[in-house]
Amino acid sequence: MFGNMESAPDMTALMPGQLLARGVSRHLASLGWATVEELVPARGLRVDVMALGPKGEVWVIECKSSRADFMSDHKWDGYLEWCDRFFWAVDGEFPVDLLPEGTGLIIADAYDAEIIRMAPEDKLAPARRKVMVQKFATHAARRLQALRDPGAGLGW
Amino acid sequence: MFGNMESAPDMTALMPGQLLARGVSRHLASLGWATVEELVPARGLRVDVMALGPKGEVWVIECKSSRADFMSDHKWDGYLEWCDRFFWAVDGEFPVDLLPEGTGLIIADAYDAEIIRMAPEDKLAPARRKVMVQKFATHAARRLQALRDPGAGLGW
Repeated sequence: MFGNMESAPDMTALMPGQLLARGVSRHLASLGWATVEELVPARGLRVDVMALGPKGEVWVIECKSSRADFMSDHKWDGYLEWCDRFFWAVDGEFPVDLLPEGTGLIIADAYDAEIIRMAPEDKLAPARRKVMVQKFATHAARRLQALRDPGAGLGW
Repeated sequence: MFGNMESAPDMTALMPGQLLARGVSRHLASLGWATVEELVPARGLRVDVMALGPKGEVWVIECKSSRADFMSDHKWDGYLEWCDRFFWAVDGEFPVDLLPEGTGLIIADAYDAEIIRMAPEDKLAPARRKVMVQKFATHAARRLQALRDPGAGLGW
């Protein structure tokens, strides 16, 4: 029974932005990338999706479910220094002319996504890349442990 | 209801060695380390627990539930080149005199663990450490995604 419930996750519990994040993560997985959600690169910042490529490439993807969601985000340019490339992920109805130049564009739904415009590359310095891969690894492993062993009472 | 089932995982589904791995992972989490299970450092090798420290330290912990389990392992010395320190994790009944010199010892049960003898350090070369942190990150994120989004049909 537990197995059945696992295979039928409660989609109603996901917010619109999280549904986009799910589609983005599925698409990036199909390209051989690994992703985590809601990673904190620095105090006060929390990225929707951080993706790690086979050669240690680091992308940040911010998911915007509506014009209002986008307009209320005053932190996005703070993410640029933590990644090699920065993308927006939006649905097919989103007014993409709003999005700033020099950023990538992904069109997504809850099930899949497509990279429409590749983001320009601004490579991380090696020391910062090392920090980001370490953060990614720790974030993913802790979330995984919390799901696999809920009785551990982990504080993360 | 799903939430309740998540908080009451089916311990009977875990093998004795996996119960030890759970206790080891809980203890290492309390020290600020992150862990994953069953990572493959190289073809033909699969470590029980790989732990990642705050500064990128890499430990391997092999969990042995019995004398027979230990005696049938002919691969353990192949793990040494993939970590800074190598440990055995066994329960309180295990005949620890069997264990080879130059390895660490952790006494564990399903709920917690204690490091009894620190393993000697043989530091990874920087290039290999980078590879191992990348493998750890990818392994953890893919397992996490498979649990969070079982409908994605991920092949890992």
